[in-house]
Formats: sequence, C-alpha cells, structure tokens
Amino acid sequence: MSGFIEVFGHGGDVETAASRFGGNPGDFLDFSANINPLGPPKEVLKALEQGLQTVLRYPDPAHRAFKSLLGERLGLSEEYISVGNGAAESMALILLGLSPRKVGTVEPGFSEYRSLSRQFGAEVHHVLGREELEWRALPEDIEKLMEQVDLLFLGQPNNPNGVQYPVEVLHRLARHAEKTDTVLVIDEAFMDFIPEARRQSLASPLQEYPQVIIIRSMTKFYAIPGLRLGYAMGRPDLIRAMTEKQVTWSVNGLALIAGEACLCSGEAFERDTLEQVSLEREKLTSDLETCGFDVTRGEANFILARVPQPWTAATMQAALGKRGILIRSCAMYPGLEERHIRLAVKDTTSNLRLVNEIKGIIGQTIPGMTAGGAEQ
Amino acid sequence: MSGFIEVFGHGGDVETAASRFGGNPGDFLDFSANINPLGPPKEVLKALEQGLQTVLRYPDPAHRAFKSLLGERLGLSEEYISVGNGAAESMALILLGLSPRKVGTVEPGFSEYRSLSRQFGAEVHHVLGREELEWRALPEDIEKLMEQVDLLFLGQPNNPNGVQYPVEVLHRLARHAEKTDTVLVIDEAFMDFIPEARRQSLASPLQEYPQVIIIRSMTKFYAIPGLRLGYAMGRPDLIRAMTEKQVTWSVNGLALIAGEACLCSGEAFERDTLEQVSLEREKLTSDLETCGFDVTRGEANFILARVPQPWTAATMQAALGKRGILIRSCAMYPGLEERHIRLAVKDTTSNLRLVNEIKGIIGQTIPGMTAGGAEQ
Repeated sequence: MSGFIEVFGHGGDVETAASRFGGNPGDFLDFSANINPLGPPKEVLKALEQGLQTVLRYPDPAHRAFKSLLGERLGLSEEYISVGNGAAESMALILLGLSPRKVGTVEPGFSEYRSLSRQFGAEVHHVLGREELEWRALPEDIEKLMEQVDLLFLGQPNNPNGVQYPVEVLHRLARHAEKTDTVLVIDEAFMDFIPEARRQSLASPLQEYPQVIIIRSMTKFYAIPGLRLGYAMGRPDLIRAMTEKQVTWSVNGLALIAGEACLCSGEAFERDTLEQVSLEREKLTSDLETCGFDVTRGEANFILARVPQPWTAATMQAALGKRGILIRSCAMYPGLEERHIRLAVKDTTSNLRLVNEIKGIIGQTIPGMTAGGAEQ
Repeated sequence: MSGFIEVFGHGGDVETAASRFGGNPGDFLDFSANINPLGPPKEVLKALEQGLQTVLRYPDPAHRAFKSLLGERLGLSEEYISVGNGAAESMALILLGLSPRKVGTVEPGFSEYRSLSRQFGAEVHHVLGREELEWRALPEDIEKLMEQVDLLFLGQPNNPNGVQYPVEVLHRLARHAEKTDTVLVIDEAFMDFIPEARRQSLASPLQEYPQVIIIRSMTKFYAIPGLRLGYAMGRPDLIRAMTEKQVTWSVNGLALIAGEACLCSGEAFERDTLEQVSLEREKLTSDLETCGFDVTRGEANFILARVPQPWTAATMQAALGKRGILIRSCAMYPGLEERHIRLAVKDTTSNLRLVNEIKGIIGQTIPGMTAGGAEQ
C-alpha cells in the first residue's frame, strides 16, 4: 500500500484523513499540502470580509481588474495572460486548447501533468530524474523526450523534490522546443517561495520563446487554496486557444477579489515568508537528518525525504495520522520508493511538533533534548 | 447593433456596463441577471463569514459533505449526482464526458448550450420555438431534432421566455430519447423559483429515464452567482463520465460551505422568495403592459418582453443604462427580434424604479401617478 490519504492523488485531503484517522477535518496539523505557513496576507482576509456581499453578483467573466494588476506586476500586456480557476484549470485549458496528441513528463513530478493529459485524451511519455541529480533529469534526456511529444510539462521548482533546473538549461530546452515544435509548459506554482535572486525562470525573457508557457499559482504563496486562483503566461495565440476552452465564470468572484488584494499586499509579507521558509526548511532538514531521514536538498516550501528503515511512507503516515499529523506519501511517484515522503515547511511550533512526534514514533531522541523539545 | 453590454454573451456583466455607461460596477440596478431579489439566506452569509478561514485549506475534491446533504434532499444516492463549479461547468462536463458529435438546442434558449457545444467540438442543430406557444417548440419538432443529434439541451423553465413544457411532454421526449439514443439534458437552473405544485419536472421519476440528465443551479435561487455552484443528476455511468473530466478542486471551498448552508436554510426563505417573485412578476408584467410592452407569460423570476416601437432593445438598454439600470437585450437570440428584452423580477422598490424610468423614457405615465410613483 502506497499511502492512506492520497485517494484523489494529492495531499491536503483532510476529509479523507478524518475518515481514516478520526477527528475533525479542520483539526489536523497538515504537512501534506504545501501552503504558506504565514497564512494569507491580512489584507486578503480583510478584502474577503468586505467583499462578501459581492457573491450576489456574477464574477467578471474577463477577470479585468485582476488581470490588469497582474499585467502591471509582470510587465506583460494582457494578451499574454490567462487567469484560471487554480493552476490546475490553467493546465487543463492548455491541454484542451492545444490538444497535444503526446505529452511528456519528467518523473517524479506533479501527478496532474499525467492525469490531466490522460483525462483529455493524450498519450503520456516520461523520462526519469536521477537520484544523483536530486531527481532532476538530464537535459539531454528531456531534449530526447521533446522529440517524441507535442507538449512537455516541467516543474520549476519541481514537486515533490523542490529543486530547480539552472536557467541555462531552461534556455537550452526552450530553444530546443522550437526545433521540435514542442510546447514547453513550465509550472512555477512554487516559484514565489524562492528568493528573487535565486529564481531560475524564463518569465523575463518569455517573449523571446514562442514555445514556452509559464503557469503560476496564487493559492500556495498567498495561502488561499480553498478559493482557487492561478494564471498562465505565453504567446497570445496560445493564450487565446486556452481561453476559448474556458467555461464562462469559471474563476469565482471572491478569488478575484483575493487575487487583487494579494497583488497589493506589499513586500513585508513576501519578505517574511521567504525568511521563515528558508530558516525553517534548513532547521527541519537538519532535525530530520538527525532522526535518520535522508533529505533531498531543495529550495521550495516542502521537503522530499526518505524515512529510515524499517519504516515506510505508509507506516509513517499511519502512525503520524493517528497523532493528528498528516504527511504526504510519495511512494506512488514514478521513480521514487516506498520510503519517500514529502513534508511541507510550516511554522516553528508546528515543525517542532512534527519532529518530536517523529522522534517519539521512531524511538529516538536528540541527546540532551526531551520529546517535549526543552533542554534538560 | 443587438446590445451594448452582452459582449460575453450574458447579462450581469456590470464591469462592461460601467465601461459603457460610466459609474461603478457595483452601483447599477441590475435587471440583466436573474438573481433572487431577497439575496442569499442570512444563514449563508453567516456561514461564509465564519468559514472564511477555510480558504487556507484545499476544497474537498469529492464535495462529500455537500453531496451527502444534496443526496438526502433529492432522495438520490450520491452516484447519481455530480457537483459543478456553477451549472455552466456541469454543462461543459456533460459535453466533455459524453463527446456528442451533434447537439440539439431549442431556440430561443440559453446561449451557453450552443457556445459550449461548439467550444468542445460539436455541431449544433436547432429548432425554433413558436410565438403562439410563448416560444416553446412543438414536441414533434423536438422529437425530429432528436433523431439528428446525440444530445439535446432543453431549458425548463426556459431562458429567456420563462415557460415550462408540461410534464407529459417531458415524459414523451424522455421516452423518445431512448429510441433515438439521444441524451436529453434538462436545465432546471430556474426551477426553484416555481412553486412546487406547479413544477413540471422529471426529477422524481429520473431513475426511470436512463437518457435524462437534469442540471440545477444553486447560484440563482440562493443569490450566490459570484461563488459558482451547481449540480447534475443522472445515470451513474453518465455522472462518472462527467466527473472523469472534472479538474481537481474545480469547486471552491466557500461555494461548498455556502451550498451546505443553503440546503439547511429552512423553508421560510423558499416561501418568501416564491411569494415575492410571483407577486412582483404579475405586478411588473401589468405595469409593463400599461407602458405598451408585449410581455410573454412565464413562471420564472424573469420576464421576456417586446419594447414598444420605435424603441429597440439596444436603444432602451442604452437609455436605461445611462440612468444606472441594466437590462438584457435579447435581440441576439435566434428566433427573437430587435425589440426583445429580458428583465429580472426584483424587489418592489427596484421594480417600481425600473417602471418609472421606463415611463420617463417613453414619455408615458399612468394617470394619477407621478414619475416618482406617489399618488397626487
């Protein structure tokens, strides 16, 4: 058995967790979904409170106010932007709009690349990442895959391993995509969690690469996954092909209000998030290594790790689930093993509770520390 | 020109109206969208306020709590139900899941039947309703159309004319659908606005008709169009085909919370709505007739009417738009004319303001009344 709670292929499913482990869906400490531990910017909750009455009106079918702010922020004219009901809808619209016969994925990767592609009738081919490259694939393997497929999904940073390809590799792949007439979809859903100076992105030179579409999510960094909001950037005719397949009003009105508030929420929220995630990721990595976990060095707000033998992802997930903590089993990812898990990087207190529960479970404590975490 | 504000094919687009007529999108008195004039049940706004913090969690991808309540309410087991991001998504999922090559519509009808069908690659055929039947089509014409198409959309009550087919006609069409192997999609988006005793619906005998899918909307009766929520009922294998094409988390978490609150909101809200809509529809109809409008006798929360010559839908829409009132032009509906408009039935004060503005515009007042509505 690969996992107890991924019956829909994803983390964050607290309803399934509650039915498996008991308790209320809202009471779990959820490390299985990769959401900003700071929660939404306070401006966003305020905008939602003040905007509740707008549920009486239809959403703007053209997302004008949000798209205009987004265009300013991205330095792109609006014809390069498509707003989606979550990044997942943007992926679906790419597949519906461009109808690729064959889709390529790099595994391990986000399962929706495969499942949406099959859902909309494409054949899926993949290359495997290599452990010695923290599960990145060799650029030449990706290029070979491009020769076989009409469209290729690439996570940057990739989920579940949290690593980026250097921007030089992206330039190389984007140029190759023109030769092979492949659309290269770069999924930057977690890019905002990486400090700007370290981001490896084709967003700035996007207009030089006609075959590249970049997808972004507003729900992870701004902690509003319940509302659904994402967007895609790319060549205007590709964007038009996407929006032609979009169902009217698919993006709800409160998501648009929240999105506008997010874009106006200021730099302090971004700075605080980046600081906390970076600090807590390093701390959690080191604590897990002390517990015998084998941790992949990534840059995102989540961690891929192998639990120490004889534990497996499934047994660890069950043991923590009974203690009210959810983790993501990664045993079902092609290329990974039954001991792989993914953990969100959360706030200090939550991370500490996780580590202490893990210590209790695996019967191991850091010398000089009790299970409660205080010094003796 | 057929209309000033239907650039996306629908009413309720206050953003386009604001750009055409000036003013703030939220300040228009909107007769172009058919939303319950009572607004949402107070339990719904309360549930949304209390549930705002749940935007931090992913929505339940299986919509379990809402679907379970819905199943109880409908007396249907859950495998007969598919929850959608608005009724529009349910329509799209039917088309994506069943891939009809040819789709039939009865015109005039909701434009999404045609546009979604074409969007997802189907050829659209139609029959025209007859003026002497308040724009219903002859059952034999619909039967003939069924012989040509794989799927047929029927509005019940139909938008924009607000009339129902007698349930005997529906039984006949549902039986015919089995002979012709046509899926009959009955759109009951506005059915809740009709008193139960007068509803002509196949919802109760649904399980006797394997070719019938019924679509319902939660956003009109419960006045939450900004949130998006609808559902479809039908044979479990048809429902499965739909959900297989649904993008994960397409229904947002606040819509699900609102939906649960709607279903628990009690009978007073329903009773008050039905009373007000029925009373105000009759009053508005009679007032419009006094102004020389030719009004179709429907049963829904909107009215189809022909403006008196020399006015057209476009000139009337522009004149009212400048006065802060939005109406729906129906000039672009196949089978209707340049003088056709659709008006939502709203509350007493709003309806009175509309009628008085119309009187002012067409230079006609009811004897003994001023433009302000008070008796002399």
